Amino acid sequence: MDIDFQKLLDGVLNKDVRLTSRAITLVENENPESVSMLKKLFKHTGNAKIIGITGPPGSGKSTLTDKLAKAARHQGKTVGIVAVDPTSPFTGGAILGDRVRMQEISTDPGVFIRSMGTRGQLGGLAKATMSAVRVLDAYGCDYIFIETVGVGQSEVDIIKLADLVCIVLIPGMGDDIQSIKAGIMEIGDIFTINKCDREGVERLYTELNMMLDLRDSSEVRPPVLKTIAQTGEGVSEMLEEADKLFYNMKESGKLQKRRKRNLKIEVENILTSIFVKKVNKVAAETGLMDDYADKMSKKESDPFTVAEDILNKL
Amino acid sequence: MDIDFQKLLDGVLNKDVRLTSRAITLVENENPESVSMLKKLFKHTGNAKIIGITGPPGSGKSTLTDKLAKAARHQGKTVGIVAVDPTSPFTGGAILGDRVRMQEISTDPGVFIRSMGTRGQLGGLAKATMSAVRVLDAYGCDYIFIETVGVGQSEVDIIKLADLVCIVLIPGMGDDIQSIKAGIMEIGDIFTINKCDREGVERLYTELNMMLDLRDSSEVRPPVLKTIAQTGEGVSEMLEEADKLFYNMKESGKLQKRRKRNLKIEVENILTSIFVKKVNKVAAETGLMDDYADKMSKKESDPFTVAEDILNKL
Repeated sequence: MDIDFQKLLDGVLNKDVRLTSRAITLVENENPESVSMLKKLFKHTGNAKIIGITGPPGSGKSTLTDKLAKAARHQGKTVGIVAVDPTSPFTGGAILGDRVRMQEISTDPGVFIRSMGTRGQLGGLAKATMSAVRVLDAYGCDYIFIETVGVGQSEVDIIKLADLVCIVLIPGMGDDIQSIKAGIMEIGDIFTINKCDREGVERLYTELNMMLDLRDSSEVRPPVLKTIAQTGEGVSEMLEEADKLFYNMKESGKLQKRRKRNLKIEVENILTSIFVKKVNKVAAETGLMDDYADKMSKKESDPFTVAEDILNKL
Repeated sequence: MDIDFQKLLDGVLNKDVRLTSRAITLVENENPESVSMLKKLFKHTGNAKIIGITGPPGSGKSTLTDKLAKAARHQGKTVGIVAVDPTSPFTGGAILGDRVRMQEISTDPGVFIRSMGTRGQLGGLAKATMSAVRVLDAYGCDYIFIETVGVGQSEVDIIKLADLVCIVLIPGMGDDIQSIKAGIMEIGDIFTINKCDREGVERLYTELNMMLDLRDSSEVRPPVLKTIAQTGEGVSEMLEEADKLFYNMKESGKLQKRRKRNLKIEVENILTSIFVKKVNKVAAETGLMDDYADKMSKKESDPFTVAEDILNKL
């Protein structure tokens, strides 16, 4: 199959929905030629506000993202949503439910929704996610939401690639604030208490604020918001808050700093991905790995020695 | 701090509990010198039965692992448990509860329990897990259980490194069988329906068997077992079944084949880990990454071009 990447690139830049969809599919599938397209795309990116949305299962992230997208659409903005599947082999009802719910807005041509599934490869999911984000950015999306359930190391790594991270919590999650590991609190720029019609909101609100007060005072104190995504309550206020934060981050230089950090991580993901592919290719072509596996099986070698051997050969 | 790795190695081989604990801690922390110990250890490994236990949150994996360990202890066997923390930033009650429950058996000197937490690095968690398993194997553990909640790409990758994978399910998980993605069914060697005192057991049992009947008939058909881990019902039968399977896998050559495959994956994890460290080191020392980030910021370059540049430099 011959793919005309120049045509796809032009399609993206000219806001052709069909060609943009196609372009995203190709970068998702890591089509080798799509790299040249991504390289050319890059200089047309940087205008979208990339917002990461994460939270525990059942916190209503998808509904919230859906409603944020609608709020942005009301302002005439275009929206991209990249939903990162938790790649759980056991999907509970919630995850399947989310996907159905998302389809509610998927008929709106001003909203692009992509669901990223499993990538068999280290760093692959993060790489594919960011590549999809770049295409949506070049296409001209004003907002791009990266949504992922906060489970698994790789998923957390992905959400950090956004410009701004929103942590969604709900009242009554067992030990509430104690149940959130330290690491995640530090990456949150906005905290949203969703399902605010439930009991325990005030307690969570107070605890969250107390915890955030203890953070480094030289940093901007993240706001704690309240929403009921189901009814849309507090959603447009949340979008406003995000806009305000973007403005401040831009003014203070923090946005540029964070984007630089994220670009470095993106390069690392790409490097790892290239490296792993190279290793696999060399190993497959030469039957090298089979020989090594035999040797290790017989205890004539061990995984660390083999790894060093291969490194020397590359 | 000077660490005598020869002494640690001798300690492990002489079944010194304190020194073995120490050795595991060092390999977990990826102490660079621990590599030489792991290399020397390797030829003393291969005797343990490495069993992976996974399942959705709330399926009672930890209790089941705990009870399997006890059953093995009753036969005078020694047991290692490597519990891989799902590294979720949002720990629900269940995960914290598991850990407390595990402490019940942690006072038994014939059982080693290690909990593996977050590793900030690609492939790092899998590498650290397998290194801990190797130490426990060399120490002389008869059974080593790798237990992980089935969420997140990395966690699934880890469970595949076991000799034998047991998938734990419970009745009443919403759509039951439909909620399990195809990929996980294929890696299961044993299916256990836990919490069999609940409603819906027979339906799940029938559905599972029907699904497994559709699998490739040249493969051994995995057994479907029933347990109530809480009371211990069916647990010793499960251990027996696992032993039977090990015996058959050994006889048919399947065990050796799978171990070879797993050794290859282990090498890949080590390679990636070395590579990522190398990249980070070069980047940090030369300030290379900062220059690249500046260039990318100004759209004078892009992540793919930078990655290729760095690869050429390495």
